[in-house]
Amino acid sequence: MEQIKILIDTKGADKGAEIMINGAVAALEKFEELSVVLVGDEEAIKRHIEVTGVDKTRVEIVNAEGEITNFDNPAEALFTKNNSSMLRGLYILGQRDDIFGMISAGNTGVLLTGAMRYVSAKRRVRPSLAAVLPSADGGFTCLVDTGATIDCTPDMLHHFARLGSDFMKNTYAIESPRVGLLSNGHESSKGNKLVKETYPLLAADESLSFVGNVEGNTALSGICDVLVCDGFAGNQVLKVTEGTATRIITDVMKYAHKTGSDEIKKLAAHLMKIYDISSLGGGVILGIGKPVIKARGNANESSVVNISEMLLNMAHNKAVFDKERNKL
Amino acid sequence: MEQIKILIDTKGADKGAEIMINGAVAALEKFEELSVVLVGDEEAIKRHIEVTGVDKTRVEIVNAEGEITNFDNPAEALFTKNNSSMLRGLYILGQRDDIFGMISAGNTGVLLTGAMRYVSAKRRVRPSLAAVLPSADGGFTCLVDTGATIDCTPDMLHHFARLGSDFMKNTYAIESPRVGLLSNGHESSKGNKLVKETYPLLAADESLSFVGNVEGNTALSGICDVLVCDGFAGNQVLKVTEGTATRIITDVMKYAHKTGSDEIKKLAAHLMKIYDISSLGGGVILGIGKPVIKARGNANESSVVNISEMLLNMAHNKAVFDKERNKL
Repeated sequence: MEQIKILIDTKGADKGAEIMINGAVAALEKFEELSVVLVGDEEAIKRHIEVTGVDKTRVEIVNAEGEITNFDNPAEALFTKNNSSMLRGLYILGQRDDIFGMISAGNTGVLLTGAMRYVSAKRRVRPSLAAVLPSADGGFTCLVDTGATIDCTPDMLHHFARLGSDFMKNTYAIESPRVGLLSNGHESSKGNKLVKETYPLLAADESLSFVGNVEGNTALSGICDVLVCDGFAGNQVLKVTEGTATRIITDVMKYAHKTGSDEIKKLAAHLMKIYDISSLGGGVILGIGKPVIKARGNANESSVVNISEMLLNMAHNKAVFDKERNKL
Repeated sequence: MEQIKILIDTKGADKGAEIMINGAVAALEKFEELSVVLVGDEEAIKRHIEVTGVDKTRVEIVNAEGEITNFDNPAEALFTKNNSSMLRGLYILGQRDDIFGMISAGNTGVLLTGAMRYVSAKRRVRPSLAAVLPSADGGFTCLVDTGATIDCTPDMLHHFARLGSDFMKNTYAIESPRVGLLSNGHESSKGNKLVKETYPLLAADESLSFVGNVEGNTALSGICDVLVCDGFAGNQVLKVTEGTATRIITDVMKYAHKTGSDEIKKLAAHLMKIYDISSLGGGVILGIGKPVIKARGNANESSVVNISEMLLNMAHNKAVFDKERNKL
């Protein structure tokens, strides 16, 4: 079987390297076509891998003593922390043709900056951080941007629309992804200054299937495949969805406890599986040369398995990360 | 029993005047101390009221033939639609000392503009539309602004913080309401340009108990009593919360249907009661001379009952809507 190789930064997760390494092992067990390059503390990785049954020819280990923390400044880290697992990983990813993509749970700012530096697209574009979220109709919605660029211009949002549209086309084989613009009302007259100025740009772009403004209550209903917004608003959509889901699932669990109902306990487990955003896909950096996926800081083993699956899907659909048209 | 009189605009709800009139009747039946002034089609109101058992001395009817629709432009309506139930209601509210507050489910823009014109505070301030939402800890969080001002300046957010703080102090008797600033991270360095410029204003205002930045996933956790944001972001928090709740409750109902479990049906009803945002308090216009509450367009009878209760609470706590300090 032809192998697809992905690189995993084993440091940077809140719960430590063990989570990332065990996640890699679980992914190797689940996906036969997967090979991994694990970057981090070589000795620790070896110790963990040796006790498992995984085929050692599918695992490559690269030692990196340094570590990026959440306190690191992106611009500074590029000059001072090249021995970190994250930056060494990005460097290797940019250099080697046999590695398809990378996963890291570390500092988002450094990951973005490092990806631009070492894995940049042939044409330099402004990268964005997209989240692929399950929509109510059973499909997926790509929310872009979710925090890479907090203050945006209309041109940036236009650019995000193109990046998101290409991503959904290539990863999920959607012929003509429907692009929505997050606003405070569905009418074309609604929006803040940024949204009002972005609307005509998206409407005039014939390469996009623009479906108009989309409100927060239908954001993840399946009404669009790509939902465009600035990083501040995207962060709210992501976190308010998560906060509300966590809250209601907690209510369900309390109710299960109160009533002692096994049915309700099963329901709570079912809901947790659907709405456990931290083990979902993670943030995809769009606009660079290869797929780099940011796992949440509080990633668990399932996160690594799910993101590996996402990368395999991308590989099969030959996700194009460096399309000519991504340059406005 | 001393009566507290509130005015109800019977027109403007999606489901028609019947909903508002029946809601008023239900509120009169529930709250003995309540009297109402119903503004709208006199004949229709009389027909509805006559068949009920409510004490007619607690009901005053004011005829108004015109109606504000969602297509009306606020500035224009002020000049051309003074015979509408909404604007006549606001005019009467501003003129008569015996009426404490008002409820309307009609056009938000016209309601805000009309309230500024006819029920303005002694000192003119920029009004905002707040939502009082149930927080996860059992209390309430006042989200301000939720859509009255979409593009804001730091001074406006500072002003909203003061209005929200006063409102929570006076309505819920919270001595020193904790004020949070909605951001994309809890650290003081996080935020878009607007949030970063607002932060020092709130931190320096000794009349506020500023608790710093608050993220979307804890927005309604009870971490603060007042959550400050621009109208665009506030609209997202409100609608994403609503959309997520609706979606999960739909999942629970499907699961109940699939399993046929009565326990789960009961749970779904329980959740719907907690998270039915459309029958919750509605939007409170802050910064004017008397309380005016905007019910959602899709208001039902319960909305009218709940908002009437909110107005009664305000009356008992002597909510001050025209405080000297609301002028920055």
